[in-house]
Amino acid sequence: MRSAVYPGSFDPPTNGHMDLIARASRLYDKVVVALGRNSIKNPLFSVEDRRRMLEEECARFGNVSVEVFDGLLVDFCRAQRIEVILRGMRAISDFEKEFQMALTNRTLEPGVETVFLPTSADLMFVSSSIVREIARLGGDVSRLVPDSVARKLAARLSAGVDI
Amino acid sequence: MRSAVYPGSFDPPTNGHMDLIARASRLYDKVVVALGRNSIKNPLFSVEDRRRMLEEECARFGNVSVEVFDGLLVDFCRAQRIEVILRGMRAISDFEKEFQMALTNRTLEPGVETVFLPTSADLMFVSSSIVREIARLGGDVSRLVPDSVARKLAARLSAGVDI
Amino acid sequence: MRSAVYPGSFDPPTNGHMDLIARASRLYDKVVVALGRNSIKNPLFSVEDRRRMLEEECARFGNVSVEVFDGLLVDFCRAQRIEVILRGMRAISDFEKEFQMALTNRTLEPGVETVFLPTSADLMFVSSSIVREIARLGGDVSRLVPDSVARKLAARLSAGVDI
Amino acid sequence: MRSAVYPGSFDPPTNGHMDLIARASRLYDKVVVALGRNSIKNPLFSVEDRRRMLEEECARFGNVSVEVFDGLLVDFCRAQRIEVILRGMRAISDFEKEFQMALTNRTLEPGVETVFLPTSADLMFVSSSIVREIARLGGDVSRLVPDSVARKLAARLSAGVDI
Amino acid sequence: MRSAVYPGSFDPPTNGHMDLIARASRLYDKVVVALGRNSIKNPLFSVEDRRRMLEEECARFGNVSVEVFDGLLVDFCRAQRIEVILRGMRAISDFEKEFQMALTNRTLEPGVETVFLPTSADLMFVSSSIVREIARLGGDVSRLVPDSVARKLAARLSAGVDI
Amino acid sequence: MRSAVYPGSFDPPTNGHMDLIARASRLYDKVVVALGRNSIKNPLFSVEDRRRMLEEECARFGNVSVEVFDGLLVDFCRAQRIEVILRGMRAISDFEKEFQMALTNRTLEPGVETVFLPTSADLMFVSSSIVREIARLGGDVSRLVPDSVARKLAARLSAGVDI
Repeated sequence: MRSAVYPGSFDPPTNGHMDLIARASRLYDKVVVALGRNSIKNPLFSVEDRRRMLEEECARFGNVSVEVFDGLLVDFCRAQRIEVILRGMRAISDFEKEFQMALTNRTLEPGVETVFLPTSADLMFVSSSIVREIARLGGDVSRLVPDSVARKLAARLSAGVDI
Repeated sequence: MRSAVYPGSFDPPTNGHMDLIARASRLYDKVVVALGRNSIKNPLFSVEDRRRMLEEECARFGNVSVEVFDGLLVDFCRAQRIEVILRGMRAISDFEKEFQMALTNRTLEPGVETVFLPTSADLMFVSSSIVREIARLGGDVSRLVPDSVARKLAARLSAGVDI
Repeated sequence: MRSAVYPGSFDPPTNGHMDLIARASRLYDKVVVALGRNSIKNPLFSVEDRRRMLEEECARFGNVSVEVFDGLLVDFCRAQRIEVILRGMRAISDFEKEFQMALTNRTLEPGVETVFLPTSADLMFVSSSIVREIARLGGDVSRLVPDSVARKLAARLSAGVDI
Repeated sequence: MRSAVYPGSFDPPTNGHMDLIARASRLYDKVVVALGRNSIKNPLFSVEDRRRMLEEECARFGNVSVEVFDGLLVDFCRAQRIEVILRGMRAISDFEKEFQMALTNRTLEPGVETVFLPTSADLMFVSSSIVREIARLGGDVSRLVPDSVARKLAARLSAGVDI
Repeated sequence: MRSAVYPGSFDPPTNGHMDLIARASRLYDKVVVALGRNSIKNPLFSVEDRRRMLEEECARFGNVSVEVFDGLLVDFCRAQRIEVILRGMRAISDFEKEFQMALTNRTLEPGVETVFLPTSADLMFVSSSIVREIARLGGDVSRLVPDSVARKLAARLSAGVDI
Repeated sequence: MRSAVYPGSFDPPTNGHMDLIARASRLYDKVVVALGRNSIKNPLFSVEDRRRMLEEECARFGNVSVEVFDGLLVDFCRAQRIEVILRGMRAISDFEKEFQMALTNRTLEPGVETVFLPTSADLMFVSSSIVREIARLGGDVSRLVPDSVARKLAARLSAGVDI
């Protein structure tokens, strides 16, 4: 059985994330979406909120689960017997940081490979941070995130939360 | 009439900004220098200071005005009936972030186009952040910013302000 | 009146070219599509063929004309009293060569500015060379070029021309 | 069963290619090394020579085969019922061309995904073209290619073949 | 006598830094490792700790000294009569920021040149920040930093310091 | 004594080359400008012409000589007891190819280091190929090359040579 982990902070999940998960679910027998507990500082959504959003959106795939992890990603892979780390690759992205992480993880755990899937062209500019920024300034993010996420963002804003 | 907006945080305005404004004033009938009120955290100069510096430097052009804006840039463009966002492009710059912003703005408002003007070669390394860093360390920034800005930076330093 | 020239070899014109021309026709009062006579070696289509394809596709715009030019682009601009060179910018492109050409043209003729328009995200991977390669290998290019161009490519192939 | 194709011109195969094949053989149930018949002009080694070199080097893997293909890679994938195209990714490489090919192939055949594996750090600068250039100038390529390939290169040189 | 300065924050020193220092010690008669006192905010190790770690590791070279400096690097160079600033260059790095700093320093002090040495391929992904991140998450950094630094990092962790 | 080699094809020498040679002559006791005999196909100027142009322009430096070499650059360095290969670095350049050559040369000869000098900002867009292209199209290259080179280019053109 071929398993892959798709790690990230997903603050919030975007259409770009969901596109990659959909494609990964066809390429691997099992996909684990791995939410790093401490991967970002001052997140907009709590880890629990993000886990719920991901689970709601991933329910339609039969072979995708969502897990929260602490510590090194390669340790999580080893514990879960996963040999592939999956990353989206955007021409418009911090490609070099991705590369550095992949080589570092390989040094830490040679048995785990990082593979990159190119993002769909029309989602190439979508990122969690741009979604947060647009929402913060009152813009419409409904074409950038799943509906359930758009509703949660709107609820945050109407509650006057500083995002 | 062809109008363009040149958005930024201008903290402080540099010779690179002024070069681009001068060229834009020849390419468009009207140019609005748009100062984002919340575009950066902990600016060195207040929005009001920055507006005054820009107005002083732009007075010599007959068709350039300075405005402060809140919220999304595309909303500002719509309100001002401006169809072009102008950005400087440096080989030495965060080109990919620029591209992401342009594609995002187009998704938010298809009627507004972002156009990029290449920076003059001899100003390619000038940025507001490098100006602040050099000034903070006691270096001479007189070749990097307009004279009026250099004086304001010097005043800040002699007043012992932590920049 | 604001005029712009959009130079290229257009061998053949693609949907990416046509998207840029459509957008340019809204941003400028007049747009000249300028076909460089000697811009590439061993073209697939003759200059005359390419001119006809462009004219056919540009007829729907009221303010776009097609011209063939020899020599330096900046000399053509000067002769036509055009102050703006328009270039498409793709995250997936030879960005640095574009930059070099823009700075060179500015050295040759300071009165002419090069401005870059970001390509639409879903057309970012389209180029004349990839269209030629796919057609050569028997692939379907109908989503990458205008219909009239697709027909001309098919005619070439069925005639047994080595492309 | 999960299959992947690793396409290339392999003129000649390098240690970088072999490293990627070794890793792919662990990640997929079956790996097809696909040698494009017309992928380069004026190759140093004939398609038949390259096929033999690859077969000799791949014999030690139980699940790797070598095939020569004509036409579009996505047509080959469809015929072989392969859903994954594998590409090596080097920080030092024509990353953008790779991205363009991946997006193009996805347009031609949405059922086939391209995935990228980062090259091992110490092989990042190795390419077939640099191997050919060093050999042509009389340099030692024994650390850059498998032994069998090094011998074939030496035989070519001693035979006075112009490479 | 040819002298060079190798500036940085070295928080902590890595095998990449030490590789570059070793190579620089052969290329120049004298090498000054220059630790910027205020180059980073909230460092993991104090300036004094970092100076000691560097001195311990540089003792084996006869022509390398360690200095702490304030203010502009070019002023330090002038005071020390050093004409060369040495920087490591990684394909995986913020190359453009490096370029900007080099051009800026040349504007501030034309008599000082910045030269770049390419990092060894197998150390290309090593940086102080990735070392800190791996150590923080409990990973093994022994292949990324000198032994003495690895011990200091471990001591920090066992003391419960938040890194 | 510290020596460096500055290799290239110099077809023709540009102001960018001469700027780098001038700076290198201050940084090293001896600089050898090394003209690769077979480094390019179909050069505009013969090796002999290029050697003469370089010698004429380098005569004003007391410590710069011009040599023609065959074969591998690292073999030339070894024969001449030179430990440093000097390359210009442009933000607008094939940076990755440069990096690949540097790492390859280090593999072939660990005793030779490649160091990169950033090009002056105002010469960043100048290259031999852009000079040839402008001259071919009848443009003025007098600001891009030394006077003696501009005269030789003009002589070529008036002689009707196809460049």
